[in-house]
Amino acid sequence: MALFIQKFGGTSVGSIERIHRIAERIEHTCRDGHQVVAVLSAMSGETDRLLRLAHAVTPHPDDRELAVLLSSGERVAIALLAMTLRSRGVNARSFTGRQVGIVTNSSHTRARIAKIMADPVRKALAEGVLPIVAGFQGVNEQSEVTTLGRGGSDLTAVALAAALKASRCIIFTDVDGVYTADPNVVASARRIPKLSYEAMLELASLGAKVLQARSVEFAAKYGVPVEVQSSFQKGEGTLVTHEDADMERAAVSGVTGDRNQAKITVVGVPDQPGIAANVLGAMAEACIVVDMIIQNVSHQDALTDISFTVPRSDLARAMALVTRTAEVIGAKTVEVKEEIAKVSLVGVGMQSHSGVASRMFRTLAGEAINIMMISTSEIKISCVLDERDCNKAIQALHAEFGLDHAPGQKGMTGRGEGTTS
Amino acid sequence: MALFIQKFGGTSVGSIERIHRIAERIEHTCRDGHQVVAVLSAMSGETDRLLRLAHAVTPHPDDRELAVLLSSGERVAIALLAMTLRSRGVNARSFTGRQVGIVTNSSHTRARIAKIMADPVRKALAEGVLPIVAGFQGVNEQSEVTTLGRGGSDLTAVALAAALKASRCIIFTDVDGVYTADPNVVASARRIPKLSYEAMLELASLGAKVLQARSVEFAAKYGVPVEVQSSFQKGEGTLVTHEDADMERAAVSGVTGDRNQAKITVVGVPDQPGIAANVLGAMAEACIVVDMIIQNVSHQDALTDISFTVPRSDLARAMALVTRTAEVIGAKTVEVKEEIAKVSLVGVGMQSHSGVASRMFRTLAGEAINIMMISTSEIKISCVLDERDCNKAIQALHAEFGLDHAPGQKGMTGRGEGTTS
Repeated sequence: MALFIQKFGGTSVGSIERIHRIAERIEHTCRDGHQVVAVLSAMSGETDRLLRLAHAVTPHPDDRELAVLLSSGERVAIALLAMTLRSRGVNARSFTGRQVGIVTNSSHTRARIAKIMADPVRKALAEGVLPIVAGFQGVNEQSEVTTLGRGGSDLTAVALAAALKASRCIIFTDVDGVYTADPNVVASARRIPKLSYEAMLELASLGAKVLQARSVEFAAKYGVPVEVQSSFQKGEGTLVTHEDADMERAAVSGVTGDRNQAKITVVGVPDQPGIAANVLGAMAEACIVVDMIIQNVSHQDALTDISFTVPRSDLARAMALVTRTAEVIGAKTVEVKEEIAKVSLVGVGMQSHSGVASRMFRTLAGEAINIMMISTSEIKISCVLDERDCNKAIQALHAEFGLDHAPGQKGMTGRGEGTTS
Repeated sequence: MALFIQKFGGTSVGSIERIHRIAERIEHTCRDGHQVVAVLSAMSGETDRLLRLAHAVTPHPDDRELAVLLSSGERVAIALLAMTLRSRGVNARSFTGRQVGIVTNSSHTRARIAKIMADPVRKALAEGVLPIVAGFQGVNEQSEVTTLGRGGSDLTAVALAAALKASRCIIFTDVDGVYTADPNVVASARRIPKLSYEAMLELASLGAKVLQARSVEFAAKYGVPVEVQSSFQKGEGTLVTHEDADMERAAVSGVTGDRNQAKITVVGVPDQPGIAANVLGAMAEACIVVDMIIQNVSHQDALTDISFTVPRSDLARAMALVTRTAEVIGAKTVEVKEEIAKVSLVGVGMQSHSGVASRMFRTLAGEAINIMMISTSEIKISCVLDERDCNKAIQALHAEFGLDHAPGQKGMTGRGEGTTS
């Protein structure tokens, strides 16, 4: 008997009919002799509806109240699924974040999980009860409602899998796995059957929307095997786990495009120690994730420029902070560019293949695409470019690195490293 | 400085614009130097939407899960009002039923309040915070969500007023007070400026929808003055309080019609002690409120009939129970009539005026209306009749008892007791 965490996203619980279909799927797993804990998101569209209400009230809704508002969406979903299962004779019971004992810090709408008690869930399982858990929510030490931020239900599922030592955490979503590129952009994009946490982490943080980066981090830390599966059709998905022999070690496993970034440049900053810390410290305090950072070489006038990217949804808050800091440190001005995209190549194999970066730059140059910022890690290379060029760049890179063929297949070897250098 | 509990119903929080209007009204009371605790229902239509979802899932949704589902509606409302007030510079904070410390029994969807801690609300008030409380919800001793049943937000408001020893509990609703009859049925119906708890209790339990009976009971028990006011226009409403000299002591203060009852008759019951207890005990256990009960005189064959009325919404559950009990006690059959209405006269003055009942029956007879069941208390007389005759009965009685004129006014004395006997 294995214990599975099954997480269902918003589209999977988007209608009564789909809730019934989930109930069937859960029952099926139980009939196979396994235990299940289900984790749910809000019904699709519900979180957006609630956000619209909040923004109709005020442009800057209070974070504590926003968490109370948004957390109601998952409560609806868990109650509906629990009553569906009960009406089918399954002894299911809903659990809110508080009832599970998901304790977070007090950053109300982007809370980080501090600990998961999970005792009530363990007790329920021992009693033969099937727990249906609200994703995305917790409580702080003062027992106030918090939410984990967008995509937080994945995190709830993975964290619960870690706490309960589940055999696997299965994320059911509207796609059947992680692809070498967005199939809407690249027609020949291919599902990746198995991925390491590291590669998945880079893909997630680079805009592949299937799994949220924080959840992958958590899964890697606690060694939780995570599987992405389609909630609409049966079949294989993508398994994310520790790197092993059977995993693809192609130089590049995927190309991603992220259009949710904006670039802020602080121009004419006196080039003194601590300046970058000043600018970026304010972002950190406001929990705004700064992605790429570039500080120019000092000009002759001892002034420098600092550019960095932030999520577009945080741009207004970021600008308010940066403008204030810029004044304090005596910078000349602050510039913004919203219409950017970050295109990235990811692959664990990059560690042992050289020349990927230069081949990437050459490919983009061949398409006459201008690169604004570059950042690299051991297993990814990202370029910020004009949003207009995003799809063209992804398509060119997907073809260049032979991603439409599995590594080891003829197509790949025929077009692989051989064509470089 | 007085402390007011201000309760706003679903239509009062039915749109963003209306939530802003409530915020203004609350601010206004604060500017006058008073303290406010707001209690909210779900936005109008929301509870029905959630109920529809539940019933789309299964005809008999589980009670525990239904409470989780329905309680989400008030959370949305309190978060929206709290963020609205905060955006206007008021230090407001939302409180769920659990956060207030509203502890109930475990009858999940019709829970009774066992105790209200209210310490967090007291603490907030002391800190200058304006508490916005979710009506209709609490938690049981196991910290599971419960709901107080339809109209339960009134109860939350009154109970909180009692716990906090508030000066007054003001119920804002879509009408400007309690009327002598439903103005949609009787054009000349008149607002009653001041009513005793007893008269209000009878009016409420008889179908005047302005205040829920349980709330009035609670208010009477703890001596909380309750005022019904319009949330859309300023002006006087109806104050419900202990009987005093200033209160109208007309024989009859109002006529009500209740179309939400259904009649069940258990036919051919062996006339033995304990039979009624058997039939009605099952209802009590299922928390179904039985209203009128009539047991016929025994027939020659030592068989009797028991008729009683239950809320129409509970009819299906009641019938399931009664049918089972009828078999056990050896009754012949069970009959149902849904299309009934209960028309009632209410008035504290009835205690000291005789002849009200006979005058009521004569008036109905004059309209050729057949009476099926009769029940009386010190301050009310109710007749169950065919639903078709309901409006005609109310209009005739309203006119007969001169309710379109305030007592003491010419019209009333001219048409009052003088015309009887």
